Amino acid sequence: MTSAYAQLEALFGRIGELESAMSVLQWDASVMMPPGGGPARGAQLAGLGLLRRDLLAEDRVADLLEAAQCETLDEWQTANLRGMWRERVHAVAVPGDLLEALTKAGISCEGAWRGARESSDFATILPEFEAMVALVQESAAAKGEALACTPYEALLDENDPGRRAAEIDRLFGELSGFLLAFLDRVIERQNASPAPPVRAGPFPVAEQRLLARDLMTAVGFDFAHGRLDESQHPFCGGVPDDVRLTTRFDESRYEFSTMAVLHESGHAMYEQGLPAKWRGQPVGQALGMTVHESQSLCVEMQASRTAAFQGWLAKRLRAAFGDDPAWEADAVLRRATRVRRSMIRVEADEVTYPLHVILRYRLERAMLAGDLAPADLPGAWNDGMADLLGVTPANDREGCLQDIHWYLGAWGYFPTYTLGALAAAQLYATAKAQTDGLEEALAEGDFRPLMGWLRPHIHERGSLTTPAALIETATGQALGTSVFKAHLEARYPV
Amino acid sequence: MTSAYAQLEALFGRIGELESAMSVLQWDASVMMPPGGGPARGAQLAGLGLLRRDLLAEDRVADLLEAAQCETLDEWQTANLRGMWRERVHAVAVPGDLLEALTKAGISCEGAWRGARESSDFATILPEFEAMVALVQESAAAKGEALACTPYEALLDENDPGRRAAEIDRLFGELSGFLLAFLDRVIERQNASPAPPVRAGPFPVAEQRLLARDLMTAVGFDFAHGRLDESQHPFCGGVPDDVRLTTRFDESRYEFSTMAVLHESGHAMYEQGLPAKWRGQPVGQALGMTVHESQSLCVEMQASRTAAFQGWLAKRLRAAFGDDPAWEADAVLRRATRVRRSMIRVEADEVTYPLHVILRYRLERAMLAGDLAPADLPGAWNDGMADLLGVTPANDREGCLQDIHWYLGAWGYFPTYTLGALAAAQLYATAKAQTDGLEEALAEGDFRPLMGWLRPHIHERGSLTTPAALIETATGQALGTSVFKAHLEARYPV
Repeated sequence: MTSAYAQLEALFGRIGELESAMSVLQWDASVMMPPGGGPARGAQLAGLGLLRRDLLAEDRVADLLEAAQCETLDEWQTANLRGMWRERVHAVAVPGDLLEALTKAGISCEGAWRGARESSDFATILPEFEAMVALVQESAAAKGEALACTPYEALLDENDPGRRAAEIDRLFGELSGFLLAFLDRVIERQNASPAPPVRAGPFPVAEQRLLARDLMTAVGFDFAHGRLDESQHPFCGGVPDDVRLTTRFDESRYEFSTMAVLHESGHAMYEQGLPAKWRGQPVGQALGMTVHESQSLCVEMQASRTAAFQGWLAKRLRAAFGDDPAWEADAVLRRATRVRRSMIRVEADEVTYPLHVILRYRLERAMLAGDLAPADLPGAWNDGMADLLGVTPANDREGCLQDIHWYLGAWGYFPTYTLGALAAAQLYATAKAQTDGLEEALAEGDFRPLMGWLRPHIHERGSLTTPAALIETATGQALGTSVFKAHLEARYPV
Repeated sequence: MTSAYAQLEALFGRIGELESAMSVLQWDASVMMPPGGGPARGAQLAGLGLLRRDLLAEDRVADLLEAAQCETLDEWQTANLRGMWRERVHAVAVPGDLLEALTKAGISCEGAWRGARESSDFATILPEFEAMVALVQESAAAKGEALACTPYEALLDENDPGRRAAEIDRLFGELSGFLLAFLDRVIERQNASPAPPVRAGPFPVAEQRLLARDLMTAVGFDFAHGRLDESQHPFCGGVPDDVRLTTRFDESRYEFSTMAVLHESGHAMYEQGLPAKWRGQPVGQALGMTVHESQSLCVEMQASRTAAFQGWLAKRLRAAFGDDPAWEADAVLRRATRVRRSMIRVEADEVTYPLHVILRYRLERAMLAGDLAPADLPGAWNDGMADLLGVTPANDREGCLQDIHWYLGAWGYFPTYTLGALAAAQLYATAKAQTDGLEEALAEGDFRPLMGWLRPHIHERGSLTTPAALIETATGQALGTSVFKAHLEARYPV
């Protein structure tokens, strides 16, 4: 007599193995795969995704979920059962045909996007993009009904369980009000002093690679359970026991790989720190993208851009690239905290970054609701940039074609970047207050005190609770803007 | 109204995607995976294997296979249906529990094997090995019943569809009779002349890597649909649209990577040349390991060790490693065709190689039948080596612990190496007779004429027929020993 819950654990273990396989195949596609392997890999991933859906959609899963609710479960098992319900609801809400259409549209629209971005020509992608928007609307409507929330919130729920749009509206409203005034003053103040010295490249790739591995080691990355490779866009993939981190080495800008590696290492530490006992089960997984981004930003933005850590980094840069005034601690810190009105989100500093996200949040909600036609996206984008950042893209490549997300089918994802930034500020402030010598250690390139706090408060808790409860329990207050604003005011004097 | 056959194609397409995923994950495990990723990867592959079995074992598959037999199918569809039957029979014969036990035993016994081989201590692996033999016996008995053949032939059928033990007994009997006398005379004759000059290493890895890529290009490898990497043991993995070839670079022996790459390129050309129209379907796959090995040996042994190709290689070696008497064409050829009585199969020349295989064939049949207890393997191995090759291993590391196959659960596999060598001799002789200028092209490092013949006769035929029929149709005679013997007599004067 195997309990219903035990049968579910076995089934979700199997599903977890399928997901792990897909994750490694996705890494391989970005890092290793020769160009001709693309179509076969696309078919492979689509097939595995449908197989996953079919397993979740079987009738017996509903019966088992029902039966398991009457069984005696401990706290982790109860949370695991909740996660199973959630995965099934998301999977069953979207019929197999629609899932297949979305997967195919993602592949075709992504391909069209690469071409359109290259030639900066939004018109060439419009037919594929309109098809994608229609499919996302259909899928969001179906999921909203199943989850008893709005279509947009259903997409949000995939990335950030339980998040509501009203909360984002409030937080983003507070943030934009604050940032619009703050930004002017920061830039004015920074421009009042001479710019920090800069050393021109090239910065040899071999040196950058050594530096990247040193930084990963400093953060605590376990190379017995992970690797560093190169890809066009840095990311953190793989599985918790085998984390695949990537970066890109640009000979003219060492800061790109340095900061990318620190960012991705924050993600990696979360994955490597998830509860080993619950590998492959829903409760053993990371708690969505807001929490994930809080971990990468806690390392990259909160800890790594402190004067303490930049001082250590300055010495390491001097050792790597030779003596130069650009490696004075003050110069390194000032360059790392320079604020600019720029066009490109992924290159934005932490003051302007939320404004890029707020623009995308407004636009994707309007497109999903049908209030903004896909054809009108370029104009709406440029107007929004002028309003929020005071700059206007010269073309769609530095405008609405810069990010892959919407074209790939990733909607309701952008807000998690900034929600993660808010969470990171709260987590870092709490860790620092509760941990002796946290920044003294950073000044020695040692993240162990920070990780010693994040491990029990975030990583080891997996998906035991909700993102809102996790942050509130860890920091003693609900997710808000005040700590983030205070952090900006302290780091960027006006 | 979708036909039963069309439904089967859809299902086997899904199964094919699962198999492709497993193939890439296996490559990754050997080439990329950090050590700590092993257990998770083992669970992943075991889970995907069970999923594959479950899909094949569904009752509806039997109904569809039955129904499709009454539908109008063309030649390829008929062969595809036959392949589907075969895959299902193999999958259903072994219950899920037994498959899982075999997979787990393979992982645990492989681990124990690495330790036992390192310390050359067979006793430490004996408990795991006995468990493995018992599971293989159980699985072979179940498959034999399902396939109406002997248990050993059922294992053989997995690797070489339709092969019968009586045929192997006959072929190996002819071969061992011939080789035992021939070997003495070849060695005597070779030893009568001074040994060919040798250049001591090191041979820089960077140069070896360039050479390896040149050799792959010469054979015809398509780098848009494949890669070259490094692993402990060379192999050819991946999928037809994305072939992952590996080698190992040993600074002291350039010949190791050179010959490994040529061998694996033969496998790779087969995979890349399979009929694109039938990707993922049973009929679109390679026709078992005898045919696969015929392709690798046709390149490595038949074509590459001709005087013609060795002459081209000699020039390429001189360019890579600098002027030296060792790069005289005659010296290069004589080293590549040097015959020795050695302990290790994978380092054996083409004259002694079949004797290594015949030993393993005898021993695995005896163990499977229960006539040889696993505990008695080391003694039986050493006796067999003395009888067949006239040498006795000094320890189990160069004896019965040298090959991974049995410990991993791969039984009924060894004979295909030598059956493949026989087939390669027939294929090469036929290709040469039917193709103008085949060896003149090899003398320029150009395999196109050879591949031009192999493509239509072997690669593009996928699994349309049986291995026996494929070889007989292509070469005009059934698989036998006479062409192989004639080849040895021509290449190794006595």
